[in-house]
Amino acid sequence: MKKRGICVWLTGLPCSGKSTIAKILAEKLIERGRDVEILDGDIVRNFLNKDLGFSKEDRLENMRRVSVLAELLTKHGIDVIVALVSPYREGRDKARDLLGNFVEVFVKAPVEVCEKRDVKGMYKLAREGKIKNFTGIDDPYEEPLNPEVVCETDKETPEESVSKIIRYLEEADMVEKKEEEEVGYTEEEEEIVKKRLEELGYI
Amino acid sequence: MKKRGICVWLTGLPCSGKSTIAKILAEKLIERGRDVEILDGDIVRNFLNKDLGFSKEDRLENMRRVSVLAELLTKHGIDVIVALVSPYREGRDKARDLLGNFVEVFVKAPVEVCEKRDVKGMYKLAREGKIKNFTGIDDPYEEPLNPEVVCETDKETPEESVSKIIRYLEEADMVEKKEEEEVGYTEEEEEIVKKRLEELGYI
Repeated sequence: MKKRGICVWLTGLPCSGKSTIAKILAEKLIERGRDVEILDGDIVRNFLNKDLGFSKEDRLENMRRVSVLAELLTKHGIDVIVALVSPYREGRDKARDLLGNFVEVFVKAPVEVCEKRDVKGMYKLAREGKIKNFTGIDDPYEEPLNPEVVCETDKETPEESVSKIIRYLEEADMVEKKEEEEVGYTEEEEEIVKKRLEELGYI
Repeated sequence: MKKRGICVWLTGLPCSGKSTIAKILAEKLIERGRDVEILDGDIVRNFLNKDLGFSKEDRLENMRRVSVLAELLTKHGIDVIVALVSPYREGRDKARDLLGNFVEVFVKAPVEVCEKRDVKGMYKLAREGKIKNFTGIDDPYEEPLNPEVVCETDKETPEESVSKIIRYLEEADMVEKKEEEEVGYTEEEEEIVKKRLEELGYI
């Protein structure tokens, strides 16, 4: 019987660094021979939730659908990394209940820092009032009360954040510890990992 | 690298026998050591597509979402069996294009036969005008033009239908042929298969 995959749920303000962490974390897990899927806010919105807006109700429905999807994948042994603002505790707690193997990661950065990054110019539009219900500007973000991991992306590099998560997963026995003496991959192994990452569209 | 899973897409009128065939087919594939997920119309509607109704547009959106979901699963090597009325050629053809490893199965029975079965009393409600846009009554069903398999469920047993599908999958080299000399499972093996089916909620 296949072991259920884990779900690492990255929550935080827009531009807090969720997607960056998700990608690096996926690479690290794939290197360890795990099967991984990233469920990213944008992907999910475009493909499965086109009908949903940004009201509280719609955001909760969005989180519910992502949870169902994650459950379907983890059931088959796939690790799922969710990178989603997911501003409501209620929605995250429901995801936790549904998924079991759940690791909540608070991707934390002050809103000013996120706003400065403003990868897609969304904060600017929100400040100008051209988009409404933007988390952190005119829509609430409920910080996690007891997240398994906190990544402070204004103080640490993405790699450091990912190391924190991996360390947690190892300590919680959710992924196997890497042997100290492992010095790296052979060229052939690296090629396989690279191919796999390409196929999954991560590189 | 994991091989992409196959997608067996069962299309047909309500009560034509899609779900019955899906369940037996899933059992057979799991017995062969494959990892299988059924995406059933009801499940999909309740979990992912609550917002969608029965207009042509909504049905196509429903089929699109199921296709995306199937693609996500087959990408990770999971076989997906879709059991969905999916009345529009356009939607099924798009699913075929997206999925590649696609087997369209027309689950065929005259509407009178399906109506007689009327598992959930839906035909009755449709006849009474209490539900609208019911496929086969006041909504169209576009029969497949070139399905890979046709199962005539008014003339064959579900087991016979499933055998047809399996035969097709074998001949198309999508699943391995079962050795003739295989006489069955040991008790231990049967126990494992049974457990797996239970976990997946099929029995």
